[in-house]
Amino acid sequence: MRARVFVMLKPSVFDPQGTTVADALHTLGYASVTAVRQGKYFELDIDAKTEDEARRIASEAADKLLANPVIESYRIDIEKTEAAKR
Amino acid sequence: MRARVFVMLKPSVFDPQGTTVADALHTLGYASVTAVRQGKYFELDIDAKTEDEARRIASEAADKLLANPVIESYRIDIEKTEAAKR
Repeated sequence: MRARVFVMLKPSVFDPQGTTVADALHTLGYASVTAVRQGKYFELDIDAKTEDEARRIASEAADKLLANPVIESYRIDIEKTEAAKR
Repeated sequence: MRARVFVMLKPSVFDPQGTTVADALHTLGYASVTAVRQGKYFELDIDAKTEDEARRIASEAADKLLANPVIESYRIDIEKTEAAKR
């Protein structure tokens, strides 16, 4: 299975990277882009039998390694892939 | 509208960050995680009337600023949000 983990700064945390990207887009003439938030994205290929098991492993990985729970939140999507059949 | 832009290294490009994360997960005991690829993730709030317009703007932003087309590919999901009603 493939787990997609999105790690974002919590809404209350200032995101200077996103602000810089938004400013750069305004400079390029894209005034219609009102806000940008930047985050991290991980694709994990997980050798798991069930979707629940894959989600549990991805969630533990996010808690322990991928995200800083003090300032970041994460979301996990599970997708059945060819890789799962290996 | 909200555009979610996922920027990933192309499959042929070596991803040392992802490899490091995979190694760290193995050290933590998660042997079932067979591979990790790391990318960037952007949420763009776009003041656009149609989904096509939002997609066009996000795509231009990705081409010009968010992704390096030589080594990275990107994917765009458009989502209608409360922010679009502002």
